[in-house]
Amino acid sequence: MGTARIGAHKMLAAAEECIARCRALALHTEEPGFTTRTFLAPSMRAVHRDLGAWMHDAGMTVSVDAVGNLRGHYAGISEAAPVLWIGSHLDTVPHAGAFDGILGVVMGGKLVELLAGRRLPYAIEVVGFSEEEGVRFGFPFIGSRGLIGDLDPALLSHQDSGGVSVLEAIGQYGLPKSQDTWGPSVGYLEFHIEQGPVLESLGLSLGVVTAIAGQTRLQLTFEGRAGHAGTTPMNLRNDALACAAEWIGEVEAHACKTSGLVATVGKMEVLPGAPNVIPSLVKLTLDVRHETDATRQNAVVHCLNRAREIAEKRGVCVTSRVMLDQAAVPMSEQFIARLSDAVMNVGHSPQLFTSGAGHDAMVMARVMPAAMLFLRSPGGISHHPDESVLASDVAAALLVGLNFLENLP
Amino acid sequence: MGTARIGAHKMLAAAEECIARCRALALHTEEPGFTTRTFLAPSMRAVHRDLGAWMHDAGMTVSVDAVGNLRGHYAGISEAAPVLWIGSHLDTVPHAGAFDGILGVVMGGKLVELLAGRRLPYAIEVVGFSEEEGVRFGFPFIGSRGLIGDLDPALLSHQDSGGVSVLEAIGQYGLPKSQDTWGPSVGYLEFHIEQGPVLESLGLSLGVVTAIAGQTRLQLTFEGRAGHAGTTPMNLRNDALACAAEWIGEVEAHACKTSGLVATVGKMEVLPGAPNVIPSLVKLTLDVRHETDATRQNAVVHCLNRAREIAEKRGVCVTSRVMLDQAAVPMSEQFIARLSDAVMNVGHSPQLFTSGAGHDAMVMARVMPAAMLFLRSPGGISHHPDESVLASDVAAALLVGLNFLENLP
Repeated sequence: MGTARIGAHKMLAAAEECIARCRALALHTEEPGFTTRTFLAPSMRAVHRDLGAWMHDAGMTVSVDAVGNLRGHYAGISEAAPVLWIGSHLDTVPHAGAFDGILGVVMGGKLVELLAGRRLPYAIEVVGFSEEEGVRFGFPFIGSRGLIGDLDPALLSHQDSGGVSVLEAIGQYGLPKSQDTWGPSVGYLEFHIEQGPVLESLGLSLGVVTAIAGQTRLQLTFEGRAGHAGTTPMNLRNDALACAAEWIGEVEAHACKTSGLVATVGKMEVLPGAPNVIPSLVKLTLDVRHETDATRQNAVVHCLNRAREIAEKRGVCVTSRVMLDQAAVPMSEQFIARLSDAVMNVGHSPQLFTSGAGHDAMVMARVMPAAMLFLRSPGGISHHPDESVLASDVAAALLVGLNFLENLP
Repeated sequence: MGTARIGAHKMLAAAEECIARCRALALHTEEPGFTTRTFLAPSMRAVHRDLGAWMHDAGMTVSVDAVGNLRGHYAGISEAAPVLWIGSHLDTVPHAGAFDGILGVVMGGKLVELLAGRRLPYAIEVVGFSEEEGVRFGFPFIGSRGLIGDLDPALLSHQDSGGVSVLEAIGQYGLPKSQDTWGPSVGYLEFHIEQGPVLESLGLSLGVVTAIAGQTRLQLTFEGRAGHAGTTPMNLRNDALACAAEWIGEVEAHACKTSGLVATVGKMEVLPGAPNVIPSLVKLTLDVRHETDATRQNAVVHCLNRAREIAEKRGVCVTSRVMLDQAAVPMSEQFIARLSDAVMNVGHSPQLFTSGAGHDAMVMARVMPAAMLFLRSPGGISHHPDESVLASDVAAALLVGLNFLENLP
């Protein structure tokens, strides 16, 4: 093949076609005017049809597996060749953009297309995971967990808002009963938009992910005492909101002074919620992420301690519950090095960083070497109709992909 | 009549009946298990039915007027007799107690009942105002403002959270088109629980209100930028909630260091409200009160300046809207003197003080002499299911009321 043989002009055209395909696929939605496509939604069939056709035309054998993953197999030089997986997810959040997930699948297909029939020492399987966002059933990664055989009956019995279980959804869609699972593999490669502002702020196109940050999600409840806003002197109040506000300031300060730590109070409810009543109850969520598990755990302990201290000082009662506690997942050192080399080989700077968001790569990393290449997100915008990607960045990422494929043993 | 003719035992029984009626009316609610009853809510019909029946049995002509006020008219000795208004409000805050407002209406009805048909030189009109708390539409006193003819089309077009305007709510409830307004009046008398800890701390049953503190109610909106909680570093955030939290701390600090000032953020909404999304929008209310108008106005200016400074520092946009700006309202000097005399006549100490809470009396005071008698609030508890009142205090207040009526020219 030889990367050099594919000129810059052709690569930009390929990138633009990837973007156009993503835009076209974004029209397959459950909600006209927006892109909303959850696990095995009716609109997913059209995605399978269009993406499957492009994969077929690129020389792949196309199928949909037992958990609804779209899979395109491109045979290697021999039948016994191990598989390099290239993938990402096909589902979206409600009112999503056109690139989160699906760009990585479209790019996988495009890379095979750019091989133009040339066989490699390994097979390539492009996979479009059926589910990663966790929207329909409240837990994520159904596609990748299904592929690696990590879906137990308890998970399969989860129900969506309409009372349909994962298992029933699979039955209704008409998927194969037995799973075409994974065998000898070279590893897993995922292209994904950054979904954050870091690359843009550094003026860079691409980033090599070294690890996916660990994440703790907590629910906290501050319980004070309601009172009349006009007749209760300041010094006799147990204001749950003033208490939570002071604590939010401390959480933010701790995250700001701890390198790489992010801490977010994203959801907050204030009760009873009347302008003239001192709030008696505040329920909120705290999301803490860091590449180092110990730093994250220390931050959680610090935040909970401060919550208790501030609440005690104010005569407010605080309780907390851990909703999610996920360790950081390092990417394969070998793959990180190969991907960094490829980025340099095509003339870009291999910025290394931690992904603050979860991705299918963290599931695949359990069973094979995994790596991720991030593409700059203009404006840092993601999970929003304005989400976008630059054609020049996609072209650079495709070049990196070809270089990576070329140098893979 | 003659107060002396009604014995202490009978008065205590009357007080206990007032309390029992309030407890029974508290069961008419939009939220089973709690007392929550806003302007023209379905549960208001049952209040009108039960209270109206008691008023009718006490000899009053009962109606519901064009803004949903329940009105019971007890004719005077002649048809031309001016009217003494006795009233308070029937709506509640969410998760309210059983006495705030409605006790004053029930006591008005009981006073007429205790007259046992005797005609006075003036008529009595007991009024249960439809709205005082400002919960449903974000501005208060719909009932009393409607009665004195102070509801303009702008106010009537305010919408509730379901997009229903005041005017539409009135139409849906089926109220008379034309208002039965006020005519020649002696004045307005309101019985109300103190809703604060002052009388209890002094070991007193009753208080005579000399003025109602001025009040400013603002709505503030902090608009930042949404972002992924995992992928947006702390230094690249414009977190609307972290901004609002810092500001809430400053508001509290300013109130704590200004004698007699109270400042409360009571209602707050955080959007989009997902655990893994940085809040882009916070809408909240600020309630500021003080007996001196200049101190209150200075506090409002300070809070708004700090909001702008904090928001600017954080790349957040803040806007504010004044929902209410009410000067302190003095009660009628003549009525204060008469009420103080009545309190002394029945053997109690006439404690004078400023009300930190707004009351319908401040609206009525614009068009006629007004006065308020406060009843001790055990524990200072108000706007809470534990709100209570002592039967002995209600009995004392009823005696004061009869003495007041007796000595009114």
